[in-house]
Amino acid sequence: MAMLSRLLQAKAIELGKLAVRATTAAGSGHPTSALSLAHIVATLMYHAMRWQPQQPRHPGADRLVLSEGHAVPIVYAACADLGVGFQLHGQTRRMTLDDLMTLRDIDSPIDGHPNPAIGFPFFDAATGSLGQGLSVAAGLGCAARLDGIDKVIYCIIGDGESREGQIWEAMDFIRDQGLMNVVAVFNCNELGQSDFVSPQQDWRHLQRKAEAFGWSATVIDGHDPDAILGALGERSRRAQQSEPLALIARTIKGWGVPQLGGPGHHGTPVRQDQLETVLGELDRRARELGVADLSPEELAAGLAISPPPAAPPPQPARAAVGFMAAAGADDKIARSVREKRALSPRRAYGLALKALGDANPQIVALDGDVKNSTYAEQFAKAHPERYFEGRIAEQNMVSAAAGLAAAGKTAFASTFGRFMERAFDEVEMAVIGGLPIKLVGTHVGVTLAADGPSQMALADVAFMRALAHADDHRGNPAMTVLTPSDAVSAYNLVLTMAAHPSACYLRAARADLPILYAESERFPLGGHKLLRPLAAKHRAVVLVATGYLVHTCLAAADLLEGRDITAAVVDAYALPLDAAPILALARDAGAPILAVEDSYVGGVGSELAEVCAEDVEGPRLRRLAVRNIPKSGRTAEDLLAYVHLSVADIVQAGETLMRQRQPARS
Amino acid sequence: MAMLSRLLQAKAIELGKLAVRATTAAGSGHPTSALSLAHIVATLMYHAMRWQPQQPRHPGADRLVLSEGHAVPIVYAACADLGVGFQLHGQTRRMTLDDLMTLRDIDSPIDGHPNPAIGFPFFDAATGSLGQGLSVAAGLGCAARLDGIDKVIYCIIGDGESREGQIWEAMDFIRDQGLMNVVAVFNCNELGQSDFVSPQQDWRHLQRKAEAFGWSATVIDGHDPDAILGALGERSRRAQQSEPLALIARTIKGWGVPQLGGPGHHGTPVRQDQLETVLGELDRRARELGVADLSPEELAAGLAISPPPAAPPPQPARAAVGFMAAAGADDKIARSVREKRALSPRRAYGLALKALGDANPQIVALDGDVKNSTYAEQFAKAHPERYFEGRIAEQNMVSAAAGLAAAGKTAFASTFGRFMERAFDEVEMAVIGGLPIKLVGTHVGVTLAADGPSQMALADVAFMRALAHADDHRGNPAMTVLTPSDAVSAYNLVLTMAAHPSACYLRAARADLPILYAESERFPLGGHKLLRPLAAKHRAVVLVATGYLVHTCLAAADLLEGRDITAAVVDAYALPLDAAPILALARDAGAPILAVEDSYVGGVGSELAEVCAEDVEGPRLRRLAVRNIPKSGRTAEDLLAYVHLSVADIVQAGETLMRQRQPARS
Repeated sequence: MAMLSRLLQAKAIELGKLAVRATTAAGSGHPTSALSLAHIVATLMYHAMRWQPQQPRHPGADRLVLSEGHAVPIVYAACADLGVGFQLHGQTRRMTLDDLMTLRDIDSPIDGHPNPAIGFPFFDAATGSLGQGLSVAAGLGCAARLDGIDKVIYCIIGDGESREGQIWEAMDFIRDQGLMNVVAVFNCNELGQSDFVSPQQDWRHLQRKAEAFGWSATVIDGHDPDAILGALGERSRRAQQSEPLALIARTIKGWGVPQLGGPGHHGTPVRQDQLETVLGELDRRARELGVADLSPEELAAGLAISPPPAAPPPQPARAAVGFMAAAGADDKIARSVREKRALSPRRAYGLALKALGDANPQIVALDGDVKNSTYAEQFAKAHPERYFEGRIAEQNMVSAAAGLAAAGKTAFASTFGRFMERAFDEVEMAVIGGLPIKLVGTHVGVTLAADGPSQMALADVAFMRALAHADDHRGNPAMTVLTPSDAVSAYNLVLTMAAHPSACYLRAARADLPILYAESERFPLGGHKLLRPLAAKHRAVVLVATGYLVHTCLAAADLLEGRDITAAVVDAYALPLDAAPILALARDAGAPILAVEDSYVGGVGSELAEVCAEDVEGPRLRRLAVRNIPKSGRTAEDLLAYVHLSVADIVQAGETLMRQRQPARS
Repeated sequence: MAMLSRLLQAKAIELGKLAVRATTAAGSGHPTSALSLAHIVATLMYHAMRWQPQQPRHPGADRLVLSEGHAVPIVYAACADLGVGFQLHGQTRRMTLDDLMTLRDIDSPIDGHPNPAIGFPFFDAATGSLGQGLSVAAGLGCAARLDGIDKVIYCIIGDGESREGQIWEAMDFIRDQGLMNVVAVFNCNELGQSDFVSPQQDWRHLQRKAEAFGWSATVIDGHDPDAILGALGERSRRAQQSEPLALIARTIKGWGVPQLGGPGHHGTPVRQDQLETVLGELDRRARELGVADLSPEELAAGLAISPPPAAPPPQPARAAVGFMAAAGADDKIARSVREKRALSPRRAYGLALKALGDANPQIVALDGDVKNSTYAEQFAKAHPERYFEGRIAEQNMVSAAAGLAAAGKTAFASTFGRFMERAFDEVEMAVIGGLPIKLVGTHVGVTLAADGPSQMALADVAFMRALAHADDHRGNPAMTVLTPSDAVSAYNLVLTMAAHPSACYLRAARADLPILYAESERFPLGGHKLLRPLAAKHRAVVLVATGYLVHTCLAAADLLEGRDITAAVVDAYALPLDAAPILALARDAGAPILAVEDSYVGGVGSELAEVCAEDVEGPRLRRLAVRNIPKSGRTAEDLLAYVHLSVADIVQAGETLMRQRQPARS
């Protein structure tokens, strides 16, 4: 065995022992998965990767994405051994072996699964919900290429994990993008949680699958540092054939410890009373392999980590042009704005995205084969090198956007709002990791009409609002949800999203909508717009709506006026919403609020209800939402009538509220 | 050309013309996708499939799952031509060509995408969100094998659609399950919506991928009925080698109409003023192929559809045993119940699932490689032939459950609640199609603790509650959400779920929880339990919680009692919730309500807020929920403190409410 290999072998065993100790200290965790990766992690982190432990987020550094996040104790062990920089209680310092023993503690930044947001910047993204890491790696790879940085992104994937379809979406995407800087390492230890992995996930099938997906797949002994290094050395040669490199690493779960082998040991730490026996087995293994005699000094001296190359400075950005300038650049759009005073919010997204891209080289975009519907194509045409076509694979698209965001890009990802649901798990993982992805869902609500409910985003608001009321590590809402009612607000909100440091989700209707706002109007997050004030009448109601339904409410307000009811109309474009001024408006007029939303419950209606319910003096609230599963219809109006959200329904609800009206409370 | 082939060719052209006409009448739709499938659909529906048009849901009939749902006009055309039985305004009759022209109308059961729930029983499930059909087909295939019915399930998948990872999850699953009764037909027309498909989705790659996944893949001309029939004839031979059959059908988008070829024609109907030209092209094509002279009578006489075989009658079911009998059958569980009076809700799920399986042969179960954590393994051991291991692929698991449900099975699918998020799109598609899947998410909430936020279900409630307030076609909540607080309620609710005709989602905590209820307690959907009444005190608060936090509230109530505050504790186990009795309790006592939930906002707190906000006389409400992204901690209590939901937090919130208390309103 060559000296380097002996040193890595010894280091792998040392890391394995630390990982076992840490999980025993934690009382939970996955020591057997960690042991299966001991040699791969040692070889990557102590030799193959060019990086700087004290500055793990160095922009030039090679990256490690641990897609099978539960195996993380082996990486933590290396980080503790190398003194990786991390944050504890707001202070940055280098990690120690004592820190390693705080694994999974409520006060520790080393969580049960990788998460940079709680102070462990070695990782770019949170992992742990399986199957997402290779997409994150792809995003990092795209960013590195854009930035002209010759770095390699290594991604470790479990064999059982490779059952997740998203892995194969990422395999396609990486090949499509020609990303030769991403290396996939499949950890084939043959064991899942509850059983052996399926034959479909054995190393032979994985090799065949990777090859069918256009990758070069090399089968190696994952406990042989020489083999690992040899296979990694193939990367450049395969790249010349446009084949990304996959290592199919055959490993042993619970490597080195016979009593931890076979099924039944997943996610189970070694009991304290067996700890010395298990560590003794690993020492015995070191002796068998002839590496037990290597001193810590020899290891430290022999395993020198190569530093990363310097990264070019980020390119400067300027402010994007305003709505009118952007709209004026396209004859058809300019005419629609000038003559019809109408444009769809999704078209405004296309305009804003392109304008942002023109002004700021850090803006990147992805879309899922609907760029001609979301109008992301305007950006794709203007900035093809910064556009990444995600095809029909939304999960990969969102996780790749997370990877791009982790690398400092402002990454927009668009598809129909309904299909964003395909990636809710990935959205939540991005949010957990604190990655400020910018999501755009178009064709939202029943007003999409003809295509039917399989294409209508109706449950998206409730899910995203749940995230909107949790703070991320910056103290911002983990998600900000924006539903613009016209093209100007859509345009301006896209610019606001780009500048906001946390994650956002914009919901853009399909239809051309009348323009309501002047270009100079500002749309602060959390805000709303009073589009139509209350007249001084005895009978008053406050209509609160978002998106398309703002226009329906304006029409309803006209009709209510004719029935001697004054109706204010509020455009509540943002969630979370500062509802206090809306409640004050209603309270002062002794008016009830009628919230109207083109979605299943859980959006602005719930937002207002939660505030009203806290307040004894609060106004009464009634909510209209989609309360039956829709179907196709040939017009938006057909659909609004089908789900009882038409102008007539709103007028009727307003009148009913007036009949039930109680005297204004003091 | 053989006569059969000529007849099918003529029929394909006839169907193509009808599909073009229907989409023009609708003013939207996908005629070019439909034309690419004309010959495949004609060959399947007029010859290969054994079925009965007047009774499309005959239990013995072969099935067609159109995964690329947007191509549905070609299937509707065949159904109209054959007079398939369908429902309109509650009446069942045979479809006509006039009906076909109602495509996408608000009053029509032929929607923009397939959906059985609105009256089109030819389809088993709603499709249209791409990539899900093959999993549905797999579920149908599992059911057919269980029922001993020799039927074939054909599934048509778009080439661009095959980018969705779920397709490959299904390819693995079908091979794992050895389902030789599912045939995948890849429609390789080379065009997506916004562009050509990626080379990764071309027919060569698809063939290689299918083979790497262990399938037999035959490339054919998808416009040649002879070739289609020849390839289908291979199925039995390949089955002997345990290889499911995939047809890689090379087709032309907009077949027969040169002006509809190439990019730019996706989802665009033929304009009325071009309709005759386009239909003329198809007639010309019929003449070129020498099939224009075949009369309707010749077609009708020559294309005789083979009837389905009789299906065996369903097996009888009996009632499942009660909780104590089920618990008594396992020594360890019996001891825990007897001595500790505690058991985890997830263990109760395992007991109930097995008991249901013992009593009812229609019960089936799936799990995603966590069956030893969800305790689905108890069913898997007792009824291995009715257990389908889904491995780490939640999307396929949920859609396969939908397929099983469509075939009349009561299908339970379990994983960690957090990972159910991976399949929210699939859940919504099942609900749209009216399929009563039974979902079980375990390890919910922050009390999971050590594994951290990537494993904690926190946003699941908000999403599922959105569905819970939309009615399905039965008039039931499209989803019923159940969060039991102990093992008895969990057990009884699983039995209730099984009997309920619509979809349900049970959220089961990981921890052992004290048993609160007697075995005989009933838990109606929509109900709640008053676990601790209000004493006659001046200062009173009503605590409302679910799951684990019911116990936290009981402990808080004890402490509040010592501070001269009487606290009722309500176990609000169901969503939707009939909140009126809870509000009445609070109102009568002049007490505020404190809702407490171990999730992001959008659950029981929002549910109560919405009702309180409607009611001027309603009590005041305060809500506690998870409002920061959690991390790992070594105990459940660490986590509850981290997210401000500990006993102390609840006591403090109760005291604060008392200080702010207003006099009871009259």
